Amino acid sequence: MASNEEQKFQVRKLELSDKRKGFIELLQQLTTCDSVSDKDFEDRFMELQSRAEDHQVFVIEDDRSGKIVATGSVFIERKFIRNCGKVGHIEDVVVDSNARGLHLGKKIINSLTDYAHSVGCYKVILDCSVDNKAFYEKCGYKQKEIQMVKYFI
Amino acid sequence: MASNEEQKFQVRKLELSDKRKGFIELLQQLTTCDSVSDKDFEDRFMELQSRAEDHQVFVIEDDRSGKIVATGSVFIERKFIRNCGKVGHIEDVVVDSNARGLHLGKKIINSLTDYAHSVGCYKVILDCSVDNKAFYEKCGYKQKEIQMVKYFI
Repeated sequence: MASNEEQKFQVRKLELSDKRKGFIELLQQLTTCDSVSDKDFEDRFMELQSRAEDHQVFVIEDDRSGKIVATGSVFIERKFIRNCGKVGHIEDVVVDSNARGLHLGKKIINSLTDYAHSVGCYKVILDCSVDNKAFYEKCGYKQKEIQMVKYFI
Repeated sequence: MASNEEQKFQVRKLELSDKRKGFIELLQQLTTCDSVSDKDFEDRFMELQSRAEDHQVFVIEDDRSGKIVATGSVFIERKFIRNCGKVGHIEDVVVDSNARGLHLGKKIINSLTDYAHSVGCYKVILDCSVDNKAFYEKCGYKQKEIQMVKYFI
C-alpha cells in the first residue's frame, strides 16, 4: 500500500521551467553534464517537443522542495522488422541520491515502459551496468545482449 | 588493397524500390519479419524519410544480381547530458548469408558510424550477442554495459 509520501511523487512530462528546478543538476548525478545555458536548454527542449511522438522525457518533482528528484527518457524507433514494428529505448534514468528508498526509479521506469506500450512498441530495451541489473529485473526486465560502444571524443 | 569485387559493393541509402530487391527477405535472415505489404513498406519508408535527419537506413546492393545483400540502420538520439549531446544507435545490421567474407558488414558499420560522427554524435552504441562481440571489436567498438529487455508480445 502506497504511503502519502509516495502518492505525492507523481510522474509528469518535462517542462521548460524544470531547468530552474534542478533538472540539469540531477542529470549531473548520472554522468558528465556540464552546465547548460538557458538558450541551449530551450533549443534542445523545443527540438524534443517537435519530436514528442517519438521522444518523451519524464520527471518527478518533489512538491515540498520544488526540485526535480527523478527523471528518465524513452524514444521510439520505427523498424521494418516485426511487421514494421516499434521499439522503445529507455535512456538517462536517474534518481536524486537524497530521494532513494521511495521507489521513484521504479515509478519512472514503469511510466516510460507504459508509454512505449501505449504507442504500440513490441518491446522496450535499455542498457545498464551489471550493478543495476537487479533493479531492472524488479521492473520486469531481463538481460538479453551486450552493449558495444565507440566514443568519438 | 580492395579487390574489384569489394569496390563494386557500395553503401547507399535505402530506396523505395529496394523492397523489390529482397530487402525484407534479407531482414528475415536477422529476426522475425513477416512479409510486409507494399503499402505498409511505403508508409514506414515515408515515416523514416520525414525523420531522415534522425534516422538513416543504409544498404549494399549486389550490382550483378540486383539484390540487397547487406543493411543496417542508425538513429540519432538528442540528449541533455554531455552538453546537449547526441548519440547514434545502430540497429538491424545483417549481411546476406550468401555474401559473407566480402567485409560487407564492416562496410555497413563503418558507414553508419561515420554518419553518426558527421552529425555530431559524441558516441555510437549498439547491442549484440556475445557471439558477435569480436566482429564489432574489429570495427573499433568496445563492450561497456548489458542490455535489458521487456517484451509486450
